[in-house]
Amino acid sequence: MEIIDQTRLPHELHISRLTTLPQMAHAIEAMQVRGAPLIGVAACYGLALALRADASDASMEAAIAALCATRPTAVNLRSRLFELRDVLEPLPPAKRVPAAYEFCERVAAEEIDISRRIAEHGLVLIEQARKKRAGQSRVNVLTHCNAGWLATVDWGTALAPVYQAHRAGIPVHVWVDETRPRNQGYLTAWELAQEGVPHTVVVDNAGGHLMQHGEVDLCLVGTDRTTAAGDVCNKIGTYLKALAAHDNGVPFYVALPSSSIDWNITHALGQIPIEQRSDGEVHEVAGMTSEGRTLSVRLSPRESQAINYAFDVTPSRLVTGLITERGVSAASQEGLLALYPERRG
Amino acid sequence: MEIIDQTRLPHELHISRLTTLPQMAHAIEAMQVRGAPLIGVAACYGLALALRADASDASMEAAIAALCATRPTAVNLRSRLFELRDVLEPLPPAKRVPAAYEFCERVAAEEIDISRRIAEHGLVLIEQARKKRAGQSRVNVLTHCNAGWLATVDWGTALAPVYQAHRAGIPVHVWVDETRPRNQGYLTAWELAQEGVPHTVVVDNAGGHLMQHGEVDLCLVGTDRTTAAGDVCNKIGTYLKALAAHDNGVPFYVALPSSSIDWNITHALGQIPIEQRSDGEVHEVAGMTSEGRTLSVRLSPRESQAINYAFDVTPSRLVTGLITERGVSAASQEGLLALYPERRG
Repeated sequence: MEIIDQTRLPHELHISRLTTLPQMAHAIEAMQVRGAPLIGVAACYGLALALRADASDASMEAAIAALCATRPTAVNLRSRLFELRDVLEPLPPAKRVPAAYEFCERVAAEEIDISRRIAEHGLVLIEQARKKRAGQSRVNVLTHCNAGWLATVDWGTALAPVYQAHRAGIPVHVWVDETRPRNQGYLTAWELAQEGVPHTVVVDNAGGHLMQHGEVDLCLVGTDRTTAAGDVCNKIGTYLKALAAHDNGVPFYVALPSSSIDWNITHALGQIPIEQRSDGEVHEVAGMTSEGRTLSVRLSPRESQAINYAFDVTPSRLVTGLITERGVSAASQEGLLALYPERRG
Repeated sequence: MEIIDQTRLPHELHISRLTTLPQMAHAIEAMQVRGAPLIGVAACYGLALALRADASDASMEAAIAALCATRPTAVNLRSRLFELRDVLEPLPPAKRVPAAYEFCERVAAEEIDISRRIAEHGLVLIEQARKKRAGQSRVNVLTHCNAGWLATVDWGTALAPVYQAHRAGIPVHVWVDETRPRNQGYLTAWELAQEGVPHTVVVDNAGGHLMQHGEVDLCLVGTDRTTAAGDVCNKIGTYLKALAAHDNGVPFYVALPSSSIDWNITHALGQIPIEQRSDGEVHEVAGMTSEGRTLSVRLSPRESQAINYAFDVTPSRLVTGLITERGVSAASQEGLLALYPERRG
């Protein structure tokens, strides 16, 4: 299994080869592989790697437990693993490895298809924003964190409509939030640069000011877990941007594969475990020296402690709509059930 | 004139000696000296330094113009310089230098007195927050940027009540926003560490999450310019925290010397020039290497551009109250005029 090591981006494009379960679990936990849709697929490959060493029930359960422990907030990782377990459990151990790889390839293809459909549904919203701001030279999208092709198998979720719009010749420009502490905004900037999409990096503090001055036509973000009621749990700081969007009448859309909907819960605050990561991610930041070396430097005084919550919850009342592979729905139980009627009852 | 070079903090406490106007203008522009109340005083010392070289009217006007150009948003710098000009203009050149120094010493002492009074008025609010959360082990204050003794002559504005509470034995804990791009939060962390005040650094994205979970009892920030109607222009990102405070019923107070009120304007958005600083402050960040060297590293991909607005506007509707040297007022024209009746009509 080969992955782009996202901890080395945007400065270095490095492909790592993973051959064991512990390697994959480490890659997910250390965020070498990240993004809710991608870690769902990556975790399944991790299970396949574990089964190559030992395809017993006990090995399978231990691998699932180890993989689930890597990132507590995203639901895709869990739901994809449980789907795969349902496929593998009835099979004799000898047949599990090929079945696991077949499943992985199928869900990878499925995620790409889902991203394409999200791109198409989201494109309509970008076209609407363009019409609304007729005469403006460009459509300004603000995004937070990275929900592009690095975070999925291809295309992305929040960035998929942007890429679609860019290819369709719509003059789209993206405000890229830095997204401290892990600075996934620079992954977004790097992706957009690869695709030739005009973009500007801003610090996480700047989005409110931009919206107050009419510089944002719509916000597009991803999500790590969405409740059945439409609450969105995404990268820390998403809630602040949603508040600013609401205060300034800027549409705030969340793009997601339905695999990131947790149909079992309706109250995100309290019901979704918020991952707390190492305080070192706040104290230190990695960048490139003038000699082209990647280096971490310490920002905080030695005497100070830090705390590092990785996600926050944006209540559905602040979300204009959810862009799913089946179309755009209101961020509500009714809205979601209208698109996914099989989840009723 | 000796200053603490704040660009070297929190890693190094370095005192710089400034002897000329260009040195002082550079120190203010590069934010070696920063904080609205402090740069008001520092600018006056800069004018005194200029007059030592040439005490003519032309020299005075040129110095005032140069100093006003360093930072466009804060009003103290301008208003203090204009006060000093009013003192100096009627005097013959030979008498201007001692008069300027006398003025500087007087306003420095005045700023300290103002900070002490802000501390006392703010202490009442911290005591109220403590009573409201009886049984809690500590009062949690969230602050943004640095409005402590580094930003003033002594004590601070937003941090003055915190120091007062700490000395009074109230168990106060401060959530310190990092405050990208210039990371003034680490100045706050350093100050609090010097004073032994418990604190925790968080990224700018985290405040909303903390407020959603009841972890913030009140927000206390400073301001670079406040309108006569109570709108507050402060460090970029302040508006986002005020939105979160409002959404979660957390009191949001702004501490200020009345010298930072611009009585001439009532609409901050559009009427206050927002300083745009170098994009390099976004692209790069300075920290300390493991060998104890201070070093800047590049965060963004080479292909990406950045934009760097230094301030944003928090509308008065989001401000619970203004803590001034005369007491706490509503963030409104009526509230301010009740405290400063001499400004009526």
